[in-house]
Amino acid sequence: MCVMANKTTLKTLKGFRDFLPTQSKNREYVITKIRNVFERFGFEPIETPTLEYAEILTGKYGKDADELMYTFIDRGDRQVGLRYDQTVPTARFLSQHQNLLPKFFRRYQIQNVFRAENTQKGRYREFLQCDCDIFGANSALADAEILAVFYAVYFELGLGSVRLLINDRDILFRTLDKYSTGEVSVLSIIQTIDKIDKIMIDGVVAELIKKGVHQNLAKEIVKAIQASSINTRLEEIMMYAQKLGVPEKSMQFSPTLARGLDYYTGLIFEGVIPGNESSSIGGGGRYDNLIEQLGGPDIPSVGFAIGFDRTIEVLEEIGKLPKFGSISQVLVTVFDQSTAKKSAIVATTLRNAGISTELYPNVDDKLSKQLKYINDQKIRYAIIIGPDEIKNEIVTLKNMETGEEIEDKIEIIIGLISN
Amino acid sequence: MCVMANKTTLKTLKGFRDFLPTQSKNREYVITKIRNVFERFGFEPIETPTLEYAEILTGKYGKDADELMYTFIDRGDRQVGLRYDQTVPTARFLSQHQNLLPKFFRRYQIQNVFRAENTQKGRYREFLQCDCDIFGANSALADAEILAVFYAVYFELGLGSVRLLINDRDILFRTLDKYSTGEVSVLSIIQTIDKIDKIMIDGVVAELIKKGVHQNLAKEIVKAIQASSINTRLEEIMMYAQKLGVPEKSMQFSPTLARGLDYYTGLIFEGVIPGNESSSIGGGGRYDNLIEQLGGPDIPSVGFAIGFDRTIEVLEEIGKLPKFGSISQVLVTVFDQSTAKKSAIVATTLRNAGISTELYPNVDDKLSKQLKYINDQKIRYAIIIGPDEIKNEIVTLKNMETGEEIEDKIEIIIGLISN
Repeated sequence: MCVMANKTTLKTLKGFRDFLPTQSKNREYVITKIRNVFERFGFEPIETPTLEYAEILTGKYGKDADELMYTFIDRGDRQVGLRYDQTVPTARFLSQHQNLLPKFFRRYQIQNVFRAENTQKGRYREFLQCDCDIFGANSALADAEILAVFYAVYFELGLGSVRLLINDRDILFRTLDKYSTGEVSVLSIIQTIDKIDKIMIDGVVAELIKKGVHQNLAKEIVKAIQASSINTRLEEIMMYAQKLGVPEKSMQFSPTLARGLDYYTGLIFEGVIPGNESSSIGGGGRYDNLIEQLGGPDIPSVGFAIGFDRTIEVLEEIGKLPKFGSISQVLVTVFDQSTAKKSAIVATTLRNAGISTELYPNVDDKLSKQLKYINDQKIRYAIIIGPDEIKNEIVTLKNMETGEEIEDKIEIIIGLISN
Repeated sequence: MCVMANKTTLKTLKGFRDFLPTQSKNREYVITKIRNVFERFGFEPIETPTLEYAEILTGKYGKDADELMYTFIDRGDRQVGLRYDQTVPTARFLSQHQNLLPKFFRRYQIQNVFRAENTQKGRYREFLQCDCDIFGANSALADAEILAVFYAVYFELGLGSVRLLINDRDILFRTLDKYSTGEVSVLSIIQTIDKIDKIMIDGVVAELIKKGVHQNLAKEIVKAIQASSINTRLEEIMMYAQKLGVPEKSMQFSPTLARGLDYYTGLIFEGVIPGNESSSIGGGGRYDNLIEQLGGPDIPSVGFAIGFDRTIEVLEEIGKLPKFGSISQVLVTVFDQSTAKKSAIVATTLRNAGISTELYPNVDDKLSKQLKYINDQKIRYAIIIGPDEIKNEIVTLKNMETGEEIEDKIEIIIGLISN
């Protein structure tokens, strides 16, 4: 306490951010919607610690990922790391608590993850992930449930226009098996195909050539992928998804959809907003071997992650976030020392009626100053209680938008505010 | 992905914990109640990053605190640290965003903090803090608002029996000034007095003697503290707090209440549950100089923190947490491949009616196996849809507790479940 902070360093770290009340309220609004949909589909919340043993986190997604991890040695000489994603800690969780969990475990998890990303790309180093997965089922029905809960989240947020691009890794593998040259792996080709929306066909062909695929073959591969047909499993999944509430027109078989991560084993999908197809707002798929590879039990898994920041951005762009003013609907003014007690009682009456209420905390400020404050804070109503009001056992309600004033008993005023 | 995790290390770090669905639901239940009360009193949420520059965090609460901090050097060679409390980041926040904030800033903040505590004392190294403060007001009315929101939180949680022990640092300072020997500081004496509920009067006297206070003086000090009278300010605060909804009997002037931290400048208080007075469930007070000392603006402040883990413990002990079973109220069974489509449609109808519903994900399991699963998961209702039900356009609802079965149209069944 004796050390004074150096004022010049009073800022957030690069890639980290504060959330002001309006931002925090928007986030909470979106999280609550997501949470409600997850729970309506029977998914249960879990939480894992922010810190884990580093050896649990590292070596799971390759060298590039490891380099983005926040790892350090703690005071007990343990190598530890900050949560990098939610799948790896979940694998550890499934292993540690297996006997306490249902055979079909529908879990969701909404926590922050940490990645030392390049901030110049507009990326944050701490951001929220919303994961939703079914562990223990390998049926088309489970895959369809996942598509349905994904769609329902966006529908609930006012983004019912979301389009689900859908593919099956199996279709990609079967098509590419024919072209496997031994020099370029199928997964490497898939990673290039994945960029088709960003770098177009020519870009994909060029990158394949660069990877060592012959020019003619590269063009043929892209054509073959584009011409792939849907398989029976995907047809079944999409049929069930319709029965589970996803409109037929909202799902689209997309043979060039590849997804970058190499662990998917079946269904893969991404959500895009029409008019902005190049950037997905979330996605996922089936990953039947991953949990065991991560050290967890051998358990078939299917799920997705919502791109929370991207989703908030889209909602903001198209004006689908509520316009939050102040949390308080009402501010009760304080005329002077002698009336402050009455103002406190009125504030309590309003709060007990479920109305968010602020009590002006200074007894000496003039009413005009208090009204200016209410106006600045965009609080909708002022309640004024002076000696006249107290004598007549009423309060004055002032609508700050219209300027209209109504004098009445507090019970009546509560009815007006609540409507 | 090629590296296999060593199964023996698949556990949480010492002092860190997972939350299983039941625990996570309990936590969410309590957080939502707290949040709702805070907002009813006009408090606004903010969030600060988990990581800050280490120099913002260290040197604020003395050497002991610094030794509990998680600090490390990040990949950009910055000295960084994990959130240790919410007051220090808020001081930074107030400084960084001052021009965007209201003059009277009621903010709440519910985030995890990290302390490398001795885990043998049953302490966790990552735990949730719920802070609620008014910045910018130094009135008795503001102090009373803080007592009122504190009481309202516990009342809302079913702990209306909470007793607020209340004191004013000013009373302690005035009493102790007389006994200041120059060798033992007033703050050091206050820190010893703070232990009176744990080590009793004799313990306090012994510790004061150990600190260098003469035996007779030590006894005299304790007597003087115990005999202190309430002052005008506290009387005013408690009068306003009553008008703001705190029952008179729930507040108690407690002259030996001292609070350990040295930054309080006026009101101090703690909440205790009758029958368990030795352990507080939360507390706070006025700290008019702290924010500036921490590098923030010169701003009068009053607020409190809720002991979240302790509160959950108390609620659990006295059975005030809801008995959460499965998130799902209903599981829709799947008779076979031919009826799965219909089961999916019924699940969707239930979800659209706001009923949390799980769809059994395997089409091949016998009904008896599915019912056993529903029973194990403590899901209240099963819905059975076989060829007969489909023919008659009905479903069978089975109450898993009573065994009772009702056959009817889905619209009627929804009414039964919702009631």
